[in-house]
Formats: sequence, structure tokens, C-alpha cells
Amino acid sequence: LGRIMRPDDANVAGNVHGGTILKMIEEAGAIISTRHCNSQAGEPCVAALARVERTDFLSPMCIGEVANVSAEITYTSRHSVEVQVNVMSENILTGAKKVTNKATLWYVPLSLKNVNKVLEVPPIQYARKEQEDEGKKRYEEQKLDRLETKQRNGDMIYPIINPEPHTVGYSQSSLIHLVGPSDCTLLGFVHGGVTMKLMDEVAGIVAARHCKTNIVTASVDAINFHEKIKKGSVITISGRMTFTSNKSMEIEVFVDADPFVDESRERYRAVSAFFTYVSLSKEGKPLPVPQLLTETEDEKRRFEEGKGRYLQTKAKRQAEVQQAARQ
Amino acid sequence: LGRIMRPDDANVAGNVHGGTILKMIEEAGAIISTRHCNSQAGEPCVAALARVERTDFLSPMCIGEVANVSAEITYTSRHSVEVQVNVMSENILTGAKKVTNKATLWYVPLSLKNVNKVLEVPPIQYARKEQEDEGKKRYEEQKLDRLETKQRNGDMIYPIINPEPHTVGYSQSSLIHLVGPSDCTLLGFVHGGVTMKLMDEVAGIVAARHCKTNIVTASVDAINFHEKIKKGSVITISGRMTFTSNKSMEIEVFVDADPFVDESRERYRAVSAFFTYVSLSKEGKPLPVPQLLTETEDEKRRFEEGKGRYLQTKAKRQAEVQQAARQ
Amino acid sequence: LGRIMRPDDANVAGNVHGGTILKMIEEAGAIISTRHCNSQAGEPCVAALARVERTDFLSPMCIGEVANVSAEITYTSRHSVEVQVNVMSENILTGAKKVTNKATLWYVPLSLKNVNKVLEVPPIQYARKEQEDEGKKRYEEQKLDRLETKQRNGDMIYPIINPEPHTVGYSQSSLIHLVGPSDCTLLGFVHGGVTMKLMDEVAGIVAARHCKTNIVTASVDAINFHEKIKKGSVITISGRMTFTSNKSMEIEVFVDADPFVDESRERYRAVSAFFTYVSLSKEGKPLPVPQLLTETEDEKRRFEEGKGRYLQTKAKRQAEVQQAARQ
Repeated sequence: LGRIMRPDDANVAGNVHGGTILKMIEEAGAIISTRHCNSQAGEPCVAALARVERTDFLSPMCIGEVANVSAEITYTSRHSVEVQVNVMSENILTGAKKVTNKATLWYVPLSLKNVNKVLEVPPIQYARKEQEDEGKKRYEEQKLDRLETKQRNGDMIYPIINPEPHTVGYSQSSLIHLVGPSDCTLLGFVHGGVTMKLMDEVAGIVAARHCKTNIVTASVDAINFHEKIKKGSVITISGRMTFTSNKSMEIEVFVDADPFVDESRERYRAVSAFFTYVSLSKEGKPLPVPQLLTETEDEKRRFEEGKGRYLQTKAKRQAEVQQAARQ
Repeated sequence: LGRIMRPDDANVAGNVHGGTILKMIEEAGAIISTRHCNSQAGEPCVAALARVERTDFLSPMCIGEVANVSAEITYTSRHSVEVQVNVMSENILTGAKKVTNKATLWYVPLSLKNVNKVLEVPPIQYARKEQEDEGKKRYEEQKLDRLETKQRNGDMIYPIINPEPHTVGYSQSSLIHLVGPSDCTLLGFVHGGVTMKLMDEVAGIVAARHCKTNIVTASVDAINFHEKIKKGSVITISGRMTFTSNKSMEIEVFVDADPFVDESRERYRAVSAFFTYVSLSKEGKPLPVPQLLTETEDEKRRFEEGKGRYLQTKAKRQAEVQQAARQ
Repeated sequence: LGRIMRPDDANVAGNVHGGTILKMIEEAGAIISTRHCNSQAGEPCVAALARVERTDFLSPMCIGEVANVSAEITYTSRHSVEVQVNVMSENILTGAKKVTNKATLWYVPLSLKNVNKVLEVPPIQYARKEQEDEGKKRYEEQKLDRLETKQRNGDMIYPIINPEPHTVGYSQSSLIHLVGPSDCTLLGFVHGGVTMKLMDEVAGIVAARHCKTNIVTASVDAINFHEKIKKGSVITISGRMTFTSNKSMEIEVFVDADPFVDESRERYRAVSAFFTYVSLSKEGKPLPVPQLLTETEDEKRRFEEGKGRYLQTKAKRQAEVQQAARQ
């Protein structure tokens, strides 16, 4: 998979939106896992995105560069497929190549005839027994995490009138989108990548409203897709800032689906996730970020939780660097 | 100008969005008026949309049909051009053709070198003196109307928490859009047609939330474009229902622009307009619409104003029918 | 048919992609031939693209210009329609118009009820007997050529690890695309124009990787569409350089379709074609192209075949120039 980055894929400064890259990653994952799940005779199926693991944006991509996306199946459980996707940016004029993303996605095969039926996944062959064991460990870990996030999913974003600059209410934003045919898989449900692109769009607007500079996606926390979203639904994507460090902003994004042509169902929470953004100068250097002003008890609690996630990620990254240095 | 209507241009029932048609109309108008304004030696310019007169959607267009758009310049004042655009839907399988829209648009030539400078328009030749006089009358009328709407432009949409079904707060909706390069003219400002398409999208979601059926655009009131919107801005498009008759819904739509990378300017109101929608059964027949429940004094006042516009349009249409019968 | 060229239609240097123009040409051809084939009472049908004759890109088109596309039916056989399409670029600021393309396309009417049934084409009236005879000659020639290319269609592109600059393996590229609803006709098969746009995108990446400059499409060899591609398929578009002259590059492009949810069919070759690119300086002047380094016997053979096509085209063009000079 590959394609040239166009002006509409990028912001005014020429940096490709994180959401554009997430959408490409998900398309590659959907193709390889659908192909794998249909590789043995049986009921035809389409692989649906269940989860994306935490993803870092290692270096920015620009207009005119070619994004090369490669995907590989790294683990299969009875009903799910783990796909590893790598994205490289290639400047075709200089030949320079950079790794921009490494993402891990989980897919579940749904029957083409009965969308509520999860089919069995053909097992893959592992080169070494340890690969299977490590995959199983990752599988168990993400299963646990999915259950946990399902519980905290009830939260809502309420509008604030005449907010002060740098408060949560000042930058919070939401958009609605009518799900069209090109947003959907053959099953008539929204591609996970389309949802992630819209989430990044809202999060980016929240970040830009807060710091009023050129901003880029630095990372996305693990995203769980609890519920499918049907063609013709209206989805509301809302974002609010939860935490700022000296040089980064964390934004929580919710996706709510409203299947209004099908009256039997109420509006429901389909996805939620945390996006981290950094602010860049015209030369591409990270800029300091204005501190988020928290007002309510809930905002203060969310700020502390965000700080916890920030410190945890920082500690983990330092441990990786030290381990790499030791080897 | 013409093209085949694709699934992405239409709703789930296969009816092409009014916004798609408005966008095509505006593109045709922009081409013919830019061409005309540059037809004499002088400073190069780009025609910017200033106003669209009231437009009726006479018959629905479907996926697979070809939209044929034709445009003609019908009047020129010193600084503006009136363009008449006709849209025909053509079923290329049966050969059936239908007039779907007749729209009148006003453009103003802006200098390519200095976007704040309005240039002079080369005069057109009229076949008969009456044509010029009638055009002048239309020009004066729209000028007056533009001034009036500029005054009522200060209104805002405030969010309501836990609204009841069929109230104004229940269906009101808003979306944000980051203005990308393909949304803009050579001058770096948003095409009027792009704005109208987004306005129709929001209005359609408001209408569908209210009546939970398949809805289509029936007409758009005159739209005035008071302020330009720059590339890189974030625009917020908000819609709320103002009036319902037995078989139609009127939705007021506001467009606010936030040029956040350019800190010298505050958020401002760029456009506002009224859209009318009807609800259709699966067989394409108009359905009764649930009555709008008004709660506040402002909502009741807006309902009465909407009723006034509704009755005025109805009377005008009956007069036209009678006049046509007499001829 | 016409529209304003937008930033996404063009490369970084502002030159509109050849693929964008090919897509517009094909849409115009599909409309006029579908209309013609349904002009007499009978089974409704949709015209499917069978072949595009060799097309030259006579002058580049730029962002902001209007592309005017006109189409005319020039010959009908019992089961096929020949359409002549002309593309003019119009600078609406200066009024300058240039012919950018003249293309000849062949369409075949497929029944809307049974997609495997080819219907009969209503005959057109010719102004002179010679027109019919010349059309018949063109019809016979293309029929022969279609048979020939079908035979050489089995070739594949294999990846090369750590290739040297200017070798075939260094610039060869491929992209995959999941076929969405808006890519398809009413019959649920990919528009020929969508395929050609993707082919041009891959060929452009191959060319840019080879010479690392701004490149533009100079011509496309005849393209035969042997097989339909169904909605929901994954298509792989691969390109490799076959020949370089002093100032041009020839790239062979293959399209393979993989109807992966529909197990009854294997991956198959749907289309193949040769694209010719030139390299341009910042001032738009043609630049010398680095010579292609051929390594294997197959590469050397393809280089010689490409040279044959190059010399044949050159001779044909010189003959045309001489004939024009004589008249």
C-alpha cells in the first residue's frame, strides 16, 4: 500500500494529518486480515477493527512524499487477528526514507451473511514457539484493557458558555458527520480508519484552539471499538483537553452514534480515546504549550489522570532507551 | 458542466443532497463570471460569490443520473455580475430530462493582487432595454435585502442539555470543518459552494433528527456572503429548526469562522440562511412532519417569523400559478 | 463537462496529474455512449470502457484552470461505440485556451439486468461514406491489437532487495486500493477512469523515483480493459520502468484484481498499459533523463521492445508533421 500525500491530506504548514495516516494503516490492516480470514473454504467474511494499540508518530510526513504502508499478521486467536503495520515516509526526490509509524491492530471476522456472527480465524504458523507465547500474552493483555475501558465509557461533554482562554471549555469542540457509502465496508458499517480520521480532526482543532499555533499528532493511546456504526447514522465526535505538560497536550475524544433512521436504538457511545499533540514552530521545533486551566473537580481529576498516563509513558520510554543502550 | 451522480453525493435513499447541487451551481457561476470579468484588458481578478437568490429544488435527482449545469450572465452592475444557472437531471438510460433547479447568483470581482480591492465589471449587451431595467430592479432589491440580513446576523446557538423530542434543542446540530486547499479559490478563500454544501449537510441532520425519516432539501432562502473565509480557518456550521408546517421544516443555519492561526482576528459570522426540508416516504411521497415544540420567547418569535416566510412564499407561488394559467 | 482544477488534482509543481484528465475523459465517454446505447427502446444498458487508444498530453494543465471536455460518437459497430473526446484547458483570467488532449475510447453496452450480456448498439448516421469506412478500419485494427495484448498479460513484478539507483528494481512501485462505491458504475463495476487515474499515480511515482525531479505524463499507450473489476475487490497496481530515451521514460503498469471475499475467483490481471513521462525543470523545460540500467535478460528484452515503440511513435509523428507541411 502506498500513495502520494496531497494538499488535502495536510495542514497549512504542509504536515500530513495524523488521521490520514491512521486511516491508511487501518485500510492495510483490514485488507490483510480479511484476506487471511477468507483463505480457507467456509463462510465469506469481512474483518472488522476491534482495537488499535498505542501508536507513536515518530516523524512528520509532508505533502509530495510517498507513504509506504506494509502489514503482517503476527498472531491469531480463535476469533481475532493481530496485525502489525509499518509506515515509512519516502521523499521520492531525495530518496530519503523514515519510519513514521508502527501500529498494532486487532481484527475480528464477521460473517458477510450475518453481521452479528463472529467466525473462526484460520491459525497462522509461527517460526518459533516463543512468538506464539508472546502473541498470546499480548492477546490477554488487550482483552483485559478492552473490558476496563468499556466501563468508563459513560462520560459526556457538556458545552460551556463564554469560556476563558486556556480553560477546558474554551477549546472543546465537536463535529457531526453523516455516514456515507464510501465510509463503509461491504457489511455497511463504518471503517475503523474513517472514525479515527474524524477523531484526529476534532482533537487537532481542540489543540489548535488551545495554543493557536501549528500542531501535529504525537501519539494515540490504545483505541477500542466497542460498537459498530451503521451506514446512514449520524456520528458526533467530541473532544476536550484533559492534560498539558510543558510541550504536549492530551485530548480525550468520544464518538457517539445516532442511528436515527432505525428508531429502535438510542444514541450510544461507539469509541473513545486519548490523542497527544505537540505544538511546532515554523522551523518545526517543539514549542512550549500554555498550561490548561482546570476549574471543576472533574477537570482537576482528569488532569491528574492524564499526568499519570504522561509519566507512565515517559518512564516506559526511558526504560526502553536504557535497555537499548545496554544491548 | 456536468457529471454523473455517485453514491457519495446522495443519502441512503439514493436522493442527491441539495448541497451537492448547490456546490455545482456555484462552480458554474464562478467560472462564467470570472471569465466575463477578465474579458477586457486590466487587472486579473477572481469572482467571489456575494449572494444566492432563493432556490427551489423542483424534483429530486438520483444516483446514476447526469447533472447538466448551464450558466448565463443576465445583468451587470458596476461592481457585480448576476448569473442565472439552470440544472437539469438526465436519466441516460431512459433519456428522461427534468429541470431540477433554477438559481440566480451574484458575484463580485476581487483583484488577484489585492483581495480587498473590488474591480469594475465589463458591461454586457442587452437584447432589449427592458432586460436591463428588470435586471437593475433585481439588483436594487437584493442590495436592500443584503443590508437587512447583515443587521440580524448577531444571533448565536446555545446548547441545551437533555432536551425533549421535537423541541428546538433536541434537533439542533453543529459541525466544525478545517478549511483545506481544495475548498479554496485561487485567492485562498473558501468557495461559496463549499460553504453551502456544509450548510445543507447540517440542515439535513437537523431535519432528520426531528422527523427520523428520509428527508430532502425543498428550497433555500436567499443566502448572503458577508465575509470571506480564509484557508486554514476553522468554520463552525450550526443549525436549528425555526418552523414546521404540516409537510415542511424550516432550519436556520449559521456559519462562523475562526481564523485561529491569524491571532489578530476574533471569530466572526460569515454567512447565515434558511433551508426548507420535506420528509419523504419510501415511495417518495411527502409525509406529515411532527410539529416543532417551542419553549422560550425567542423560539416562539422565530416560529412566527418562519410562518410569515412560509405564507409569503405560498402566496407568491399561488400568484405565479394563476398568472401562468391566465397566459 | 468541465470543472476547475484544484490543488488535489495536481502535483507539488502545480501541474494537473494526467490521471485526473484521463478520469474526466472517461466520464465524458461513458455518459455519451450510455446515452446513445439507450436511445432506442429496448433493454436498458450501461456502456463499459473496453479500450482507450494512444493518447498524447499536448500541453500541461495547471491549478485554477478550467478543463472543458467535449465528446462525440464517431463510429458504431454492432456491439461497440467509438467516442472521440477533446480536452481544452482554459485560463479564465487571461482567456487563453489550449488543446490538451484528444482521446479515442471504445465502449461496449452491458445489460443492466445481466451484466454478462452485451447488447446491440443503435447505428449512427455518417455525413459521408468515407467516415464509415475509416471508422471500420479503426475498429478492425483495435480488435486485432486487443487480442495480442491479451496474450502477453501474464507477466508479474517481483520485489528486489537493496536495488542500485537507476535500475528497474530501484524505481518499481505498487499500490493497493480497496474498491469503494463511488469508484463504481450503476452495474457495480469500477469505472475505467478510476483505474486509469490509479495507474497514472503509480507510473508517476516510478518516474519520480527514477529521475528525482518534477515529472509529467507525456502520453499513454493504448489501454485494453480485458476484465471487469467488482465493488469490494482489492486492486493492486504495479509499475516498472521499461525504457528511457534522452528525454522520456516508459513505464509499464499492471492492474490485478483480487475479489477476496468472493472465493469463487482467483486474483486476475484486469488491465495493463504503457505510460510515457518527461522530466521538467522549474521553468517547465524538458530535462535529460538518467538512463535506465537493465540487468536481467527480461529487462534488456523489454528495453529493446520499448525502444521499438519509441522509434515507431517518433517516425509516425514525423510523418504527420511532413504531411501537415505538405498540405
